[in-house]
Amino acid sequence: MKLLVVNPNTTTSMTNKIAKAARDVARPDTQIVASNSQNGPASIQGFLDVATCIPGLLDEVKQHNDVDAIVVACFDDTGVDAVRCVADVPVLGIGEAAYHAASMLATKFSVITTLSRSVPGLENNLMRYGLAQKCAKVRATDIPVLKLEEGDPATLAKIRAEIEEAITQDKAEAIVLGCAGMADLMQSLSDEFGVPVIDGVASAVCMAEALVAAGLKTSKIGAYAPYDAKDT
Amino acid sequence: MKLLVVNPNTTTSMTNKIAKAARDVARPDTQIVASNSQNGPASIQGFLDVATCIPGLLDEVKQHNDVDAIVVACFDDTGVDAVRCVADVPVLGIGEAAYHAASMLATKFSVITTLSRSVPGLENNLMRYGLAQKCAKVRATDIPVLKLEEGDPATLAKIRAEIEEAITQDKAEAIVLGCAGMADLMQSLSDEFGVPVIDGVASAVCMAEALVAAGLKTSKIGAYAPYDAKDT
Amino acid sequence: MKLLVVNPNTTTSMTNKIAKAARDVARPDTQIVASNSQNGPASIQGFLDVATCIPGLLDEVKQHNDVDAIVVACFDDTGVDAVRCVADVPVLGIGEAAYHAASMLATKFSVITTLSRSVPGLENNLMRYGLAQKCAKVRATDIPVLKLEEGDPATLAKIRAEIEEAITQDKAEAIVLGCAGMADLMQSLSDEFGVPVIDGVASAVCMAEALVAAGLKTSKIGAYAPYDAKDT
Amino acid sequence: MKLLVVNPNTTTSMTNKIAKAARDVARPDTQIVASNSQNGPASIQGFLDVATCIPGLLDEVKQHNDVDAIVVACFDDTGVDAVRCVADVPVLGIGEAAYHAASMLATKFSVITTLSRSVPGLENNLMRYGLAQKCAKVRATDIPVLKLEEGDPATLAKIRAEIEEAITQDKAEAIVLGCAGMADLMQSLSDEFGVPVIDGVASAVCMAEALVAAGLKTSKIGAYAPYDAKDT
Amino acid sequence: MKLLVVNPNTTTSMTNKIAKAARDVARPDTQIVASNSQNGPASIQGFLDVATCIPGLLDEVKQHNDVDAIVVACFDDTGVDAVRCVADVPVLGIGEAAYHAASMLATKFSVITTLSRSVPGLENNLMRYGLAQKCAKVRATDIPVLKLEEGDPATLAKIRAEIEEAITQDKAEAIVLGCAGMADLMQSLSDEFGVPVIDGVASAVCMAEALVAAGLKTSKIGAYAPYDAKDT
Amino acid sequence: MKLLVVNPNTTTSMTNKIAKAARDVARPDTQIVASNSQNGPASIQGFLDVATCIPGLLDEVKQHNDVDAIVVACFDDTGVDAVRCVADVPVLGIGEAAYHAASMLATKFSVITTLSRSVPGLENNLMRYGLAQKCAKVRATDIPVLKLEEGDPATLAKIRAEIEEAITQDKAEAIVLGCAGMADLMQSLSDEFGVPVIDGVASAVCMAEALVAAGLKTSKIGAYAPYDAKDT
Repeated sequence: MKLLVVNPNTTTSMTNKIAKAARDVARPDTQIVASNSQNGPASIQGFLDVATCIPGLLDEVKQHNDVDAIVVACFDDTGVDAVRCVADVPVLGIGEAAYHAASMLATKFSVITTLSRSVPGLENNLMRYGLAQKCAKVRATDIPVLKLEEGDPATLAKIRAEIEEAITQDKAEAIVLGCAGMADLMQSLSDEFGVPVIDGVASAVCMAEALVAAGLKTSKIGAYAPYDAKDT
Repeated sequence: MKLLVVNPNTTTSMTNKIAKAARDVARPDTQIVASNSQNGPASIQGFLDVATCIPGLLDEVKQHNDVDAIVVACFDDTGVDAVRCVADVPVLGIGEAAYHAASMLATKFSVITTLSRSVPGLENNLMRYGLAQKCAKVRATDIPVLKLEEGDPATLAKIRAEIEEAITQDKAEAIVLGCAGMADLMQSLSDEFGVPVIDGVASAVCMAEALVAAGLKTSKIGAYAPYDAKDT
Repeated sequence: MKLLVVNPNTTTSMTNKIAKAARDVARPDTQIVASNSQNGPASIQGFLDVATCIPGLLDEVKQHNDVDAIVVACFDDTGVDAVRCVADVPVLGIGEAAYHAASMLATKFSVITTLSRSVPGLENNLMRYGLAQKCAKVRATDIPVLKLEEGDPATLAKIRAEIEEAITQDKAEAIVLGCAGMADLMQSLSDEFGVPVIDGVASAVCMAEALVAAGLKTSKIGAYAPYDAKDT
Repeated sequence: MKLLVVNPNTTTSMTNKIAKAARDVARPDTQIVASNSQNGPASIQGFLDVATCIPGLLDEVKQHNDVDAIVVACFDDTGVDAVRCVADVPVLGIGEAAYHAASMLATKFSVITTLSRSVPGLENNLMRYGLAQKCAKVRATDIPVLKLEEGDPATLAKIRAEIEEAITQDKAEAIVLGCAGMADLMQSLSDEFGVPVIDGVASAVCMAEALVAAGLKTSKIGAYAPYDAKDT
Repeated sequence: MKLLVVNPNTTTSMTNKIAKAARDVARPDTQIVASNSQNGPASIQGFLDVATCIPGLLDEVKQHNDVDAIVVACFDDTGVDAVRCVADVPVLGIGEAAYHAASMLATKFSVITTLSRSVPGLENNLMRYGLAQKCAKVRATDIPVLKLEEGDPATLAKIRAEIEEAITQDKAEAIVLGCAGMADLMQSLSDEFGVPVIDGVASAVCMAEALVAAGLKTSKIGAYAPYDAKDT
Repeated sequence: MKLLVVNPNTTTSMTNKIAKAARDVARPDTQIVASNSQNGPASIQGFLDVATCIPGLLDEVKQHNDVDAIVVACFDDTGVDAVRCVADVPVLGIGEAAYHAASMLATKFSVITTLSRSVPGLENNLMRYGLAQKCAKVRATDIPVLKLEEGDPATLAKIRAEIEEAITQDKAEAIVLGCAGMADLMQSLSDEFGVPVIDGVASAVCMAEALVAAGLKTSKIGAYAPYDAKDT
C-alpha cells in the first residue's frame, strides 16, 4: 500500500527524521511518501501555528490523491478533521495514534512534549478523543521543537528527567513522546526506562496500515461528508 | 471603545446583517468596525471551512490593531484561539458568548444550527468550554448558511419547528441561534416563544464591552503568550 | 439602567467596598443600587452561612422590584437560583460571572478564596456550571472574610503567595479572586503579576449590563417559572 | 437508637405519612422522632422553596439535639449540607439515600418526581453526588406535591405510566420515587412492576441506622467543621 | 436475618478477622455466616487475582442459598456483578459500601490501600460507580495484603503516614480503608485522627441489613436478569 | 509474526468464523493461531458469563506462550486486564480495538450488539476506555449470540433495522458490530449502508499487528506488573 506521511511544518530535516521513523516500522510492501508543507510555520508550537499551517498542509495533501491512507505528522493533530473532509481513505494524526496505542498497553500514560504553550491544545485533543482520563499528565520540557534537531545532550537530559517524574510521580505506566521531532528517541528511551515509550509517527504509520488492511475508511456521512453544491 | 466584529467568511450581505445586529445592542459610545475576510469560503460549514477560513481571518484582524476587543462572528468560534495569540485585548467567539450568556439565564439550552455536518464541531466546542452539560441538544435545520440570506418563509418555518421541539422534547429553557446569519431573528422568535432566544453576535458584542469595561484582557502567559525568538 | 448589587451578608463595610467596585466599572448611565441583607450572617463562610443568609437576601431583593438586573455579591453564588424564581430580569452571582469571564480570557484559571471550609461549595458550583474543567485549583488562604476588611499586610502577603503558586504550579493563566471582600485588589494584583486577576463584582456588574443591553432576560419556563396557584 | 426524621415543609399529613414509612422499616429498638418545620412552604417545589424552607428546618433540628442521626425528608435534599455543619451525627437526605441504594441494586435507575420545575435541582444533586451516570432519566409527572395527599386515582395512573416508560424506554432496572409524598406507594408498585421501586424515606432511615451501627459520624474537618470564633 | 459474608480469597485468618468485624456491627438478630473460597488466590492483588478468584467465590455463594443478603468481602468488589446474576437478594461489595458511606459523611475522601498494582482497578470501580469525583486520591502503602495479618508495627506506621498525607495534602475529610485486612483498624485510627475512618466490612454489613430492612432486592431485569433457556 | 486469537467461549463454530475473519485481514506473513477455551460458557452474555469464562481463557492463553500478540475475541473484552498480567506482548480485546478504530474514522459511532443484558457491561467498558463520549448508543438486537450461528434471515433483518436507526436517529457516522459472531457481516453491511461497519476481530488483528510492528509491548510496571514473591 501507499501511505502519505505529511509533516505540516516546512522543516525538511524533521521530515527526513519522520520518514526514517515511518520506514523503520512500515510493512515491506508499504510505500512511504514523506513530504512537508511548502508554506507555513517552520515548527508548530501553540494555537497560532496550529491554525496557520493548515493551508500548506491541505495543498500538500492534494498533491497525493492516490494514497491508501494519510498520516498528519504533527503531534497537535492539526488539520486532521479538515483532511478527513477531503479524503475517504483513513486519516490519522500522530497524537491520536499514540494515545490510542498507549491506551491498549497501559492503564495510564503521561505525555512529554516541547513548549508549555502547547500543553492546553494537547489537553483539548485528549478531551475531545475521550482519552484525557487515561492521561496522567501532559508535561512540557520547554524545549522548542527545532532545538530537538540539534542533538544537544542537555535536551535529552530534560526529556529523561520528565520521564523519570512521570513514572514516579504521575504513576504513568507508559510514556507518549509528544512531538514528531522525538521520533528517533523511542527505542533507546524504552530500553532505558523499561516502559513503553511511544512515538506517534511509528504508531500512526502502523495503525494506518491496520485500518487499511481491515478494509476501513473514513466515514463520509455527517462531519466528514463530501462538500457539494447543495451545501452552499 | 472600538470593537472589531469580523466575519470570517467572504459574504458581505452576512457582514452587513452582523454589523446591524452589533450596532443595535452596542453602547452609544462604542464604535463597531464590521469587516470580513477578503479570501476564503463564502460560508463556514463544517471542519474544512473552519480550517480554511483562518488565514483570511488573521489577515483581516491584522488590519485593525487599534481596537479594544475583537469578536469573531462565526458560530463555530473558528480561529478564536489563534487570534488570542496575536492580540492582548479580549477576543470572543459568538458561539462561546451565546453559550455563556445562556448558562446564566436558564438551567438548560438547545442550539438551533444550519447543516448537520456542523453539529460535531459545535459539540466539540461545547465540550471544550465545559458547557456541554448545560446544552440539551444541538439541532440541525439542514438549511445551508447562505440560504438564510434569502428570507425564504420555509427557512423560518424549519427554525420555528426546531425551537418548538427543543422546548417540548429537550426541556430547553432557552434557545441559542447557532449561526451569525440568524442574528436578525432573535427578537421576534424570543417574543413568539416566550423564552430567551439568544443570538451570538449580540451576546458577544455586549460581553466584549463588559470585559473591556471591567478592565480585563486576554492572558498572555501560557497558551496565548506572544511568540518571540526564544520559541523557535 | 438600574442595577441592584446586593450583598447577602450584613457587613456594611463590605457593601461599601462592593458598591465602589461596582461603580468603578459601571456604564455612566447605570445607576448602582448597593444594599445588604438586614438579617443574617455577618460573613458567608461555608454551607451553613450559604443557607442561612437566604431569607435576608430574598427580603432585600423584594425591596427593589424596579431594577433591570440583579447581582448577588457573594462569591458562593448563594440564593442565585432562588432569586431567579422571583425575578425575570437577569440575575448573576459574582462567582459565576468571574468564572465565565475567566473562561474567555485564559485556557485555565485558579481561584484564591478565604477559608478552606468554603472550597467544597465553590467546587460544587464550578461543577454545576460545567466550568470545573477550566479551573486548575481552588486555593484557600485561610483568611476569614472579615479579616480582609482590616487591611492587614499579612493578609495581602498570603493572597500574593497563593497567586504565585497558582501561576507556577497550577499553570493557571488567570486568577479569580474568590471573595467580594477582595474586590479592591483586582487592579494592583493584575499589574503586579501580569496576568488577568478577575474580581467577581466587576465581572458581574459588566456582564449584567451586557445581558440587559442584549435584550436578554431570565427564562421563565422550567426551573425558574413563576410560582402560581396550579403548583400548590 | 433515636432518629430524627424531619419534614422541611409544614404539611403535617405528609409528616404523618413519612413517620409511618419510617416506622415500617426501622429497627424494633429505634425510636423515630418525626417532625416538621413550623414555618416555611407547605410543599417544596423548585429552587425557591428549597431555599426558603431552610430556616424552619434548622430551627426544627435544633429542638432535637439528642438524636443519633438525622434524616431530612425532602427529596431535594435541601439543607442537608447546612445541617451537617451543626450536627456531628450522620445526616442523610432522602434523595441521596435512595440514589445510593438504587446504585447497589441496579446498573441504571430512573426517578419519577412531581413537577417539571423540580427536575433541574434533582439533576444538580445527582451530578454533585456523582450518581448522574447511574440515572437514566429524571421524569416529571407534573403532579403537585400536595395533590399526592388526595389519593386521586388519576395521580397514581400518571406515576404508573412514567414507570412503564422508564422501564421500556430508559432501560431503567430500578425506579426511585422522587418525593416523600410517594412513600406509601413503594411496596405495591414494586410488586406490580417486578423491579425495585425505591422510596427515599425507607432508604434513608435504614441507611442512617446502618451508619450509626457502623460507628460512623459526619466528618468535622473541612466543609462541615464546627463554626467557632476564629472563623469570623 | 441471615447474612453471607464471603471472603473471595482462601486465607482463613482474614476470614476470621472479617467475621469479627461483621459481628461487631451487625444487629443482634442478624446471623453472620462468614466463609471463604475453597480454591483460588491466597490474597487478591491486582487484575489477575481479581479474575481468578471468581470461580471459588461463585462456588462458595452457591452453598448458601438461604441468606437474606450477600457481602463480598474484597475491597476490589470482585465478582459482585456476577453474584448479582445468581442472587435476587442484595449483594454488596465492601469497596462500594465504603465509598457510598463516605459520600454521605464527607465532601471528599481518600482511600488507603495495599499494593500500587491494585490502584488502577480501584480507580476503575470508583469511575463505574460515579464516585471518583468524591475521591481525592487512592493511596498505596505498598504493603502486601497478607503482611497485614502479621501485626507488624511498621505496617501500621505506613498506614498512619498515608492518612496524615491524605488529610493535609488531599484535603480528604474522611478515610476509606482499602482492604478487608484493615478492618480491625477502623476504630483506633478514627479516634486517633479525629475523622471518619471507614472500613468496608462494617459498612457493607450494615448497608446490607439496611437494604433488607427497607424491603429492597437486586433488580432482576436487564443486567442481572436470571439466565434461562431463551438466552442461549 | 504469530498471533493468538482466542475465543473465550467453547463454541468451535464461532472460533472457525473468527479464524476466517482474522486470516482474511492478517498480513501474509502473520500466522493466526485460533483457539477457544476448553471449559466455560458456550456463549458470553452478561456479567456471569464474563466472569466464569476467565479460567478457561487463562488456561488457553498459557498453552501459547510463544506468540507475538494476543487477541481476546469476545466483544466484552473479558479477561483482557488479567491476560495482560501474564503476558508482555500486546493484548487486545476485540471490543476496545473496534472502538479505537471507529474513533479515528468517525466523530460518533453506535454499537449493535446481541442481548440487552450485555449492554451495561459494554457501557462500563466504553466508560473505562474514555470512549463513551464517542459512542452515540449501544443498541441491543435481542438476538442470542448462538442464534447468529444459524444464518436465519430474520436475524440479519434485525441487525439491519438497528443500523438504520443508528444512522438516522443516533446520527452515528460509523457502526461497530458488537459480537464476534457478526464478524462475517462487516463487508456486506458496510457496502449496503455506505458507512464504516466495523468488526472487532478484523480491527483487533490488524491493530495487534500494528503494535507489534511499532515495537510496542504491554507495560510491566503498575497494574500489569509481573507477580512475584514479594507481593504475597
